[in-house]
Amino acid sequence: MSLNPTHDPAARSWLAAANEAACDFPIQNLPFGVFRRTGSSEAARGGVAIGDAIVDLAALARDAVLTGPAARGAEACAQATLNDFMASGPEVWSALRHALFGLLHQGAEGAGLQAVRACLVPQAAAEMLLPARIGDYTDFYTSIHHALNVGRVIRPDDPLTPNFRWLPIAYHGRASSVVVSGSDFHRPWGQALPPGAPAPVLGPCARLDFELEMGMYVGPGNPRGRPIPLAEAEQHIFGMCLLNDWSARDHQFWEMNPLGPFLGKNFCTSVSPWVVTMEALEPFRVPFERAAGEPQPLAYLDTPANRARGSLDVQLEVVLQSARHRELGLAGDRLCATSFRHQYWSVAQMVSQHTVGGCNLQPGDLLGTGTISGPTHTQCGAIVELSKGGTQKVALPGSGEERSFLLDGDTVILRGWCDRPGAARIGFGQCRGTVLPALASAA
Amino acid sequence: MSLNPTHDPAARSWLAAANEAACDFPIQNLPFGVFRRTGSSEAARGGVAIGDAIVDLAALARDAVLTGPAARGAEACAQATLNDFMASGPEVWSALRHALFGLLHQGAEGAGLQAVRACLVPQAAAEMLLPARIGDYTDFYTSIHHALNVGRVIRPDDPLTPNFRWLPIAYHGRASSVVVSGSDFHRPWGQALPPGAPAPVLGPCARLDFELEMGMYVGPGNPRGRPIPLAEAEQHIFGMCLLNDWSARDHQFWEMNPLGPFLGKNFCTSVSPWVVTMEALEPFRVPFERAAGEPQPLAYLDTPANRARGSLDVQLEVVLQSARHRELGLAGDRLCATSFRHQYWSVAQMVSQHTVGGCNLQPGDLLGTGTISGPTHTQCGAIVELSKGGTQKVALPGSGEERSFLLDGDTVILRGWCDRPGAARIGFGQCRGTVLPALASAA
Repeated sequence: MSLNPTHDPAARSWLAAANEAACDFPIQNLPFGVFRRTGSSEAARGGVAIGDAIVDLAALARDAVLTGPAARGAEACAQATLNDFMASGPEVWSALRHALFGLLHQGAEGAGLQAVRACLVPQAAAEMLLPARIGDYTDFYTSIHHALNVGRVIRPDDPLTPNFRWLPIAYHGRASSVVVSGSDFHRPWGQALPPGAPAPVLGPCARLDFELEMGMYVGPGNPRGRPIPLAEAEQHIFGMCLLNDWSARDHQFWEMNPLGPFLGKNFCTSVSPWVVTMEALEPFRVPFERAAGEPQPLAYLDTPANRARGSLDVQLEVVLQSARHRELGLAGDRLCATSFRHQYWSVAQMVSQHTVGGCNLQPGDLLGTGTISGPTHTQCGAIVELSKGGTQKVALPGSGEERSFLLDGDTVILRGWCDRPGAARIGFGQCRGTVLPALASAA
Repeated sequence: MSLNPTHDPAARSWLAAANEAACDFPIQNLPFGVFRRTGSSEAARGGVAIGDAIVDLAALARDAVLTGPAARGAEACAQATLNDFMASGPEVWSALRHALFGLLHQGAEGAGLQAVRACLVPQAAAEMLLPARIGDYTDFYTSIHHALNVGRVIRPDDPLTPNFRWLPIAYHGRASSVVVSGSDFHRPWGQALPPGAPAPVLGPCARLDFELEMGMYVGPGNPRGRPIPLAEAEQHIFGMCLLNDWSARDHQFWEMNPLGPFLGKNFCTSVSPWVVTMEALEPFRVPFERAAGEPQPLAYLDTPANRARGSLDVQLEVVLQSARHRELGLAGDRLCATSFRHQYWSVAQMVSQHTVGGCNLQPGDLLGTGTISGPTHTQCGAIVELSKGGTQKVALPGSGEERSFLLDGDTVILRGWCDRPGAARIGFGQCRGTVLPALASAA
């Protein structure tokens, strides 16, 4: 059993909603986000989810019930983005989380209890915003199952590029079009090359896809020219969220050789609003899952200590709710279910690889894991994999429909949670977005 | 002859240095940048280069000698970045530039002349900073000569990908490691696959390169989901600079398939400090240079009006100054000389393509043109082209050395200028950086 009191599965909050079995935000979670009351002109500020409420950290900082690093952390969270808090590092993150645990615990009493009670805002009354000003957004490509599945579509003769097993491949994504869950987007226009055609055509995307990913926010980061060694990498990750890397496959596959994805991805990327800290995820470490015969990574990417840290068992699912589902009053059909544990490369390995050449990571930068697909077909985290490049239909039994790619009106909902014996279940909430029809013309 | 008085080649400033024949910053230029006095604790603020001096725009704004849009522009420039000024749009940019032209013209007199005289800071006493907080940095690939030259190194059988002639290819670069001219960097570590080796190795880059590019700063930009049509694209470009996209070719060529360049580029990108406005560049428009037989671009990328705008004849050169050159008191040897006019795609086409799917550009975003190589060998803008993939030596006659790639201590200096009959010569200053030795270990 962990010595960290915030990992105690028996801990309960005085807030009843936090103790319900299916609640994503029990006292063992305490994820961070940025919010304001819906429709208000209030300043956005940091908050922590507990049950069906949010602890307003700007209000808590004003009440001055915290001391030391926890107080400094709450002060940093009193702004419209969590960048300064992310910059403050693991000691401050943990101190504030532990202080909130104490205030929200069923044993809390006195002035602190009174203060935190007065700082609660119902989640139902709040709108969530991006948790950070994202300076740079990097997207990795760390699922060997996804790489093989997509590789078979694009390069049937050579599905896995030789570098995949040697380094966590990544590319830079678009920071400006990262949006918080609930922000919709128009089906993008772009160029695609129809099969066999002599020239490309401009049109609305005909092969629109989602990608089930997780995101990581950078903590302190590193100065330019100073790599982060593997042993220190986890100290530079503040926490994780769900991420949907919406993809226009027809545009992407036409444009991406030789410089990689660009317009096929940069029209919209959605993230869930709550950032679950690495401390909250600690009880869900599992051994790495790497098949026998895989090559031994180079030393800078693989140490006994890192191997011992293993991976994280974050369970994930994708639900598609179509316009027809909504007409029928249905929540949608589940398209896939998998776990982050199947990724070939770990969060720490991604951080070390990203900085090995001296690239500077900054507080609030966003790293995506790449599509998270497991070894079986129902574990595929993108519809291009589920439909085998659009050649097969994916059934939606609830609505009686089927899909090879997304249609207008489709809402895609990502969910994630951790649940294992001996630990309290914690969740990520959801990341959702709806496909709006393409504009009447591109330009 | 242009009706724009700032284009009058006969115009002179009362500041003698601005009238010298080889001066990059005559009264017809008036580029914008951000500076402070070297070694001071002053706040950084916007300035305009004239001759060997800088007009301190924060001081000028305080003196309140300007009115209307020009005054609003100077106010916006009184900050540590020009993002707000870039956001203000062509009317404000032009109003401030014309007002400064009036104050700096040899015919200026009265209170305005007194005020601007009091706002001058010698360039020699100033340190230049990045002109903008760069939200996203995009790098294009718009020279067909460069694409063919590099393509022959990587893919001898298929040097030019079929999409090149149909759209301005681009990828997202790293915003955090964009630095201003004069910032040096350590030779990056990274993975490379030695020829014929069964596995990659980690080591300092052995094939370090520069890339001669130009950069464009985004002005107002567009909301997410709303493309910028070609006819409006130029209104969204504030101005241009020189850009060196330093490249670790051994790392890049190992990592870039399938998702494009990442660590091979993101350790450092250098930009010149002065941003030359599109208005100042207007007299240097030249017809597009596209060979007969090239395909007709799709309509959203090619209109008669855009074709009539043509390209820009910005003359460019790259000088390498080695440690040996410095020992000998030499300025270095010129490696190449070319012009921006040879690019296959224009600035306006880049903006329209970038936004056609709805990607939002924001004020201060940086767009790189990609390496600028002309049709002949001495017009190649990267050493990988000049040395034909490292198979030939590039002579440095001044120092008696030769290079296939860059060595430690090498300083690379980019210069750019416009000069044609009937217009005053204007220049971009320079973009320089020096290769420092690799760190003793990567991590």
